[in-house]
Amino acid sequence: MSKWVYRFGDGAAEGRADMKNLLGGKGANLAEMASLGLPVPPGLTITTEVCTYYYANGRTYPDTLESEVNQAVAAIEKSVGARFGDEENPLLVSVRSGARVSMPGMMDTVLNLGLNDKTVEALAKQSDNARFAWDSYRRFIQMYSDVVLGVDHYHFEELIELHKEEKGVDLDTELDAEDWRQIAEGFKAKAQEELGYPFPQDVKEQLWGAIGAVFSSWHIERAKVYRKLNNIPEDWGTAVNVQAMVFGNMGETSATGVAFTRNPSTGDKEYYGEYLIDAQGEDVVAGIRTPQYLTKMAREEAGATAPSMEESMPAVFGQLADVFDKLERHYCDMQDIEFTVQHGKLWMLQTRSGKRTAKAALKIAVDMAAEGLIDEKTAVLRVEPGALDQLLHPTLDPDAPRDIFTRGLPASPGAASGIVVFDADTAEEMAKEGKAVILCRVETSPEDIHGMHAAKGILTARGGMTSHAAVVARGMGRPCVSGAGQLRIDAKNGVMSATGREVKAGDTITIDGASGEVMVGEVKTLQPELAGDFATLMKWADTYRKLKVRTNADTPHDTQTAREFGAEGIGLCRTEHMFFEGERIVAVREMILADDLEGRKSALAKLLPMQRSDFEEIFKIMRGLPVTIRLLDPPLHEFLPREEDEFEDVAKSIGADVEHLKRRAAELHEFNPMLGHRGCRLGITYPEIYEMQARAIFEAAITVEQKTGDTVVPEIMIPLVATRKELETLRAYVETVAEEVFTETGHRVEYLVGTMIELPRAAICADRIAVAADFFSFGTNDLTQTTIGISRDDAGRFLDQYVKQDIFAQDPFVSIDQEGVGELVKMGAERGRSTKPDLKLGICGEHGGDPASVEFCHRTGLDYVSCSPYRVPIARLAAAQAALKG
Amino acid sequence: MSKWVYRFGDGAAEGRADMKNLLGGKGANLAEMASLGLPVPPGLTITTEVCTYYYANGRTYPDTLESEVNQAVAAIEKSVGARFGDEENPLLVSVRSGARVSMPGMMDTVLNLGLNDKTVEALAKQSDNARFAWDSYRRFIQMYSDVVLGVDHYHFEELIELHKEEKGVDLDTELDAEDWRQIAEGFKAKAQEELGYPFPQDVKEQLWGAIGAVFSSWHIERAKVYRKLNNIPEDWGTAVNVQAMVFGNMGETSATGVAFTRNPSTGDKEYYGEYLIDAQGEDVVAGIRTPQYLTKMAREEAGATAPSMEESMPAVFGQLADVFDKLERHYCDMQDIEFTVQHGKLWMLQTRSGKRTAKAALKIAVDMAAEGLIDEKTAVLRVEPGALDQLLHPTLDPDAPRDIFTRGLPASPGAASGIVVFDADTAEEMAKEGKAVILCRVETSPEDIHGMHAAKGILTARGGMTSHAAVVARGMGRPCVSGAGQLRIDAKNGVMSATGREVKAGDTITIDGASGEVMVGEVKTLQPELAGDFATLMKWADTYRKLKVRTNADTPHDTQTAREFGAEGIGLCRTEHMFFEGERIVAVREMILADDLEGRKSALAKLLPMQRSDFEEIFKIMRGLPVTIRLLDPPLHEFLPREEDEFEDVAKSIGADVEHLKRRAAELHEFNPMLGHRGCRLGITYPEIYEMQARAIFEAAITVEQKTGDTVVPEIMIPLVATRKELETLRAYVETVAEEVFTETGHRVEYLVGTMIELPRAAICADRIAVAADFFSFGTNDLTQTTIGISRDDAGRFLDQYVKQDIFAQDPFVSIDQEGVGELVKMGAERGRSTKPDLKLGICGEHGGDPASVEFCHRTGLDYVSCSPYRVPIARLAAAQAALKG
Repeated sequence: MSKWVYRFGDGAAEGRADMKNLLGGKGANLAEMASLGLPVPPGLTITTEVCTYYYANGRTYPDTLESEVNQAVAAIEKSVGARFGDEENPLLVSVRSGARVSMPGMMDTVLNLGLNDKTVEALAKQSDNARFAWDSYRRFIQMYSDVVLGVDHYHFEELIELHKEEKGVDLDTELDAEDWRQIAEGFKAKAQEELGYPFPQDVKEQLWGAIGAVFSSWHIERAKVYRKLNNIPEDWGTAVNVQAMVFGNMGETSATGVAFTRNPSTGDKEYYGEYLIDAQGEDVVAGIRTPQYLTKMAREEAGATAPSMEESMPAVFGQLADVFDKLERHYCDMQDIEFTVQHGKLWMLQTRSGKRTAKAALKIAVDMAAEGLIDEKTAVLRVEPGALDQLLHPTLDPDAPRDIFTRGLPASPGAASGIVVFDADTAEEMAKEGKAVILCRVETSPEDIHGMHAAKGILTARGGMTSHAAVVARGMGRPCVSGAGQLRIDAKNGVMSATGREVKAGDTITIDGASGEVMVGEVKTLQPELAGDFATLMKWADTYRKLKVRTNADTPHDTQTAREFGAEGIGLCRTEHMFFEGERIVAVREMILADDLEGRKSALAKLLPMQRSDFEEIFKIMRGLPVTIRLLDPPLHEFLPREEDEFEDVAKSIGADVEHLKRRAAELHEFNPMLGHRGCRLGITYPEIYEMQARAIFEAAITVEQKTGDTVVPEIMIPLVATRKELETLRAYVETVAEEVFTETGHRVEYLVGTMIELPRAAICADRIAVAADFFSFGTNDLTQTTIGISRDDAGRFLDQYVKQDIFAQDPFVSIDQEGVGELVKMGAERGRSTKPDLKLGICGEHGGDPASVEFCHRTGLDYVSCSPYRVPIARLAAAQAALKG
Repeated sequence: MSKWVYRFGDGAAEGRADMKNLLGGKGANLAEMASLGLPVPPGLTITTEVCTYYYANGRTYPDTLESEVNQAVAAIEKSVGARFGDEENPLLVSVRSGARVSMPGMMDTVLNLGLNDKTVEALAKQSDNARFAWDSYRRFIQMYSDVVLGVDHYHFEELIELHKEEKGVDLDTELDAEDWRQIAEGFKAKAQEELGYPFPQDVKEQLWGAIGAVFSSWHIERAKVYRKLNNIPEDWGTAVNVQAMVFGNMGETSATGVAFTRNPSTGDKEYYGEYLIDAQGEDVVAGIRTPQYLTKMAREEAGATAPSMEESMPAVFGQLADVFDKLERHYCDMQDIEFTVQHGKLWMLQTRSGKRTAKAALKIAVDMAAEGLIDEKTAVLRVEPGALDQLLHPTLDPDAPRDIFTRGLPASPGAASGIVVFDADTAEEMAKEGKAVILCRVETSPEDIHGMHAAKGILTARGGMTSHAAVVARGMGRPCVSGAGQLRIDAKNGVMSATGREVKAGDTITIDGASGEVMVGEVKTLQPELAGDFATLMKWADTYRKLKVRTNADTPHDTQTAREFGAEGIGLCRTEHMFFEGERIVAVREMILADDLEGRKSALAKLLPMQRSDFEEIFKIMRGLPVTIRLLDPPLHEFLPREEDEFEDVAKSIGADVEHLKRRAAELHEFNPMLGHRGCRLGITYPEIYEMQARAIFEAAITVEQKTGDTVVPEIMIPLVATRKELETLRAYVETVAEEVFTETGHRVEYLVGTMIELPRAAICADRIAVAADFFSFGTNDLTQTTIGISRDDAGRFLDQYVKQDIFAQDPFVSIDQEGVGELVKMGAERGRSTKPDLKLGICGEHGGDPASVEFCHRTGLDYVSCSPYRVPIARLAAAQAALKG
């Protein structure tokens, strides 16, 4: 038979800190503190399994729950020496929710439960403080009515205001016991009026009402949204904690407060917190009175006058400081603590690991390791990899004023200021003149790449978090705000407007890619600090991880950035981005328009030296490390103009007939280009393209080896392979070119030929494809598109709703869909290695920089992940954590 | 050690008829005939494994081959009493290729091998016929030079013509021994001139040259193309047969002929064939002399005067007739036979199962079963399911004259004549007036469906075998010629042209969907005969098959057709086709343009009665059988106009603002609609659409049950499911509507809710999805698109080349890609049944009518296949064969 209720108090407990899944965070830590001998009011925890039972059984409870609760309440009564509902010596309790992790929107707390018209009198007598008793009662009626019975709290606040008006006073403190008694009566009447039945006087009814309210609040909208945002499963459930009340509002020797054992913002080793004398817990949070500092030093630094707790209650503060140290030593982590002082006695109400900024997380982890509190491994596990993103980009100075123009999606982190330009060419020109520019487009396309690269930041009016602009900007490490829905861009007239204001080309704006805000004018930014704690922690991480971390980089600049961030090679160099720049696009279009093989070859001959010099630069920067180059992937029509008015310009620039150009564009048009004539299909139908690229790679590798003396090992990657025969055919072309170049130059280089696994068929047939492959790189972007059948460019229309309705736990383009897409990756890895046990396996694409996906790759036995330069540190840390957790 | 050579002759053989894989068809049957005691010239067969070895080892032979051949030749020498190359008594041999199945383009035959300047003299002496000997020699030089040495035969024909001119004669028969001797000398000189070396006199060199030529011819282009077209694997290889020569050209008591044991065109039980007196085998085929009939009856029927073999050589004919009967009884199948008579003695040179028309195949199978030669099972296995296609559609009268206008792809079988119309609306109008029309379009789109339905046939200028026009036409059973590349359609001016001719709207044309021909004017057609042998064989097939066969039908007409063809229910009723007709498209567009839920609901309310009445008709026709209805699948933009000039019309017709319409169309535009906002994603985001459809289904089912008293079991199918949650959510909507309708009407119907498995993720997660499904239907069209990552609409650009280069053995949209897509189907079936052992499994989509795919479905344990109405009989037969083979 299940045990549904766990008790704690009097220096002992049935639970432990490691029972969070069962008891929730709060309950488990209360139990732990009780066992540690810390002063914890006695109580009981109803387990999360009851919550699960509750939802699985039409909102009913297990049979034995009531008797278990009754026995536990009896134990509290015995410990406190009071009885629940007793008209002489009543026990009052608090009821709090307690999930594994705290969650806004959940029913938080009902205090003073157990008060009714009889017990309030007893409390007045017992405490010899009628004002306290009636104040407590009216608080209880208000709180219980609000959170349990659903009567909005403004009804009650109104009554207090009316009473104060009648009496002609301004402050609550000016109300006496009789005032509160009258107000309590008014509250009860109001509750009855709203509810249609009287406010419950039966304390058991009160208790079960509060328990039910906690469980019900698990399914309210706000909690669900929070869980969604934070990837907390619906089926975890919440526990309920029932605990004897202690009172911080019993006069000048009573107080209540919250504290962190270190500074959660900076990570500095100093007590950090606030307290209020003669107050109950929610008063600190509510902001009605200004809380006071905990320590003298903090008060002095802030220039505040109200005495700190250290000064006003030195003895209790001393006890508290001891508790802080004890808890930090016990938990080996910074603690976030709630406490109450009742008549000079300290009671601990909560402890938990404290939330912290990325900067603080780093510092605390590194400091604690230095202090010997934790070891390096634990330090590595303490920092959320995703949080590093905040540290790697310039951020807006939080103190600088902001003149908000509009908002969009936080599509790529970092902040940047610059002058507004509306097209890629102008962006490139002005950047060459040394100007900082922000490229503002309705949406971006591959033709904007050079402008995006030249810009300090990108702003788009349309497109989601995985739009072209967002993906490319993240790849480049450029801040980006995408999908600013209110923004109207009129590029022709060089102006954009939002909410009635206009910004013209040449005006300065600032975008914050972390918040999605767009500001008029320049806002001061702070540069990232990559040495110090960051460097230390990354060094530790590198010693533990098994996965190599490479980068996706197409330009020398990105390659350089990635190498500085610790990339161990390039996992994906997309050659098509190189096709759009300057002169090249002209040659590319000539090639596409050529009527025959000869025409194509002559256009390709123009591209060869340009591609070769790109590769030379990249090989030089990455020297000594592997570089994976993907041969041409996108369908050819991507290189032709789209808009009617562009055709004439393009026709002129390449010296082609505009009708011919249009006809060719129409011929190449595809209904579903994602599933079209692209990837290795281009190599099969136009071998000359891949041959040119292979030649450029080999010639560049040989030049760099000869010039630098370093070994260059190009890894040539064939995209979109579905069958072994495709890879065999194209591999043969590459090998032929290699031998030609080796013969011509009298110099050989080592090289690998492998393939992307980015189609379900490739994963399924991986054992056969592996015969012709030296390596696999899982292209999980396209694999996600094909496996789930969703186009990344179009998914915006329903993906939000899919995530909201919990159909997808997360956007599958952000974090790999382990159940579906991941299963194919596993299959591909296993089958590939069944043919070639030492097959090199990696992943490229956006998932390579997502911590959960990195962990998945580690578990699946891949050799490396590859991600955009700015996510390299995130991947390094995530890989280390995956290794340590495994 | 392998045995590379098998001998036969003198009433015995090392091989058998069932060793075709090793000995090739010809060799195996020669061995079999020898063992049967039939008169077969002795010989040897070099196995197909030698061919495989030859290509795997750089065109070299196994070590022991030569000695095995030598020993076998010695055995022939002994049997015949002559020696190979002997200058007194020379053995002559033929060398023939022999693959498992005969194949055009392969090196066929070299006769008279073993002749040289010496042995020709011996042959003259021995046969006492110098003319015969020299004629044989010159034939050998010509044939060997052509097929082995690559000297084109016209060089030699020229020399004969010159010789005849010089001599002043017209016919070969007017040339004597000396003439042939001179010609043979001329041939040798010519060969040397072309080759640069003398014609080989060494008979062993001749023999090995011929053997090598057979193996080499396995890889010539024509043979490769044939294998591709007929799905014959490259690695089967060919055998080589070396056999003692017999001569049909030794005068008036010698002859050569070919025969079928039954009529291969009609299937009638009568000897059928031709012979020539004093001729060698190739003379019959070459058509230089007109062959004579075999039987008196055939001669008389044809009104020919040249005596039949029955009349001119009654004794030998009697022997031959005995052999025919013996072979047919032995092989239990119609035989295709080659024979030679040498000096009045009959020799058998080949027997094999004869090729036949579909009609003959049916008749022979049914007749032989009636004769007791074969059982019903064998009869069912004897008819190629795909061949039935010829029998189910009207065909052009082969005797009617044809005025060819242009040609396209044979996209959907059948022939039809009608007047030319260029748009769907006109097609519908004119069809209503009772006119037969052929709809001619550049390409078709879903908006043309009503016109395609109204038309007798469809002709398009663009699009392949799997284009929209082709797929829909096959589904409807309409003849279709697609992708007529030379055709220019100018719909605006009501004219189309090809190769300089014009056809105007209103002119009559005829299309032949089986050949791709388009004719000007009406060509007489023949109607199919579905009773008799066809009905008998289908009845037998039905008793053996395990798979049920359903149909894909969206209209009452198709439903009726399919039921007549034996469909056992509907496996796929696509509701979107119903959305395009008449009034409906207006309501559909209103729904799409509505700004809110209320607007959508009011538009849907207009559609409800129309959908309901469609379903009522379909349920009535299919009463007693299951009907699977797929809820709305295509993205909404498919229902909006595409062309600029359509917007105004549409805006007017639905009373909407044209700008609003355009904006909405732009909003709905998708880059990859195949992977877009469609299928169940519409149901999730617009539940009201699916709710309307579910209501229409339930109301229709109840009405039909109440009116007819028959049980109606609708199977509601949710498309494009990727996750369990989608199906659960939508299932709940359907169930809610069901209960509403049942309450309103006071009548309940049985129903199932299931899903298409058409995304790789769905197959992978089938165990979880099955929790919420009563059935799965594998949508292998979309599953092929996503698994292989190819868009059916775009694949034309490279698919041909992919099939040519053997990257795909076949078009994966025609026959299921068993290795890739099929693996997912298996996985989906296994995982689905792991959750629900009795889960109903089917397949819909084009593959359901492809025999190889049907066999795959049988092996995979599906319950049914569903295909277009005209393919139902094909699927029934294929399913029976699969069951019998299994």
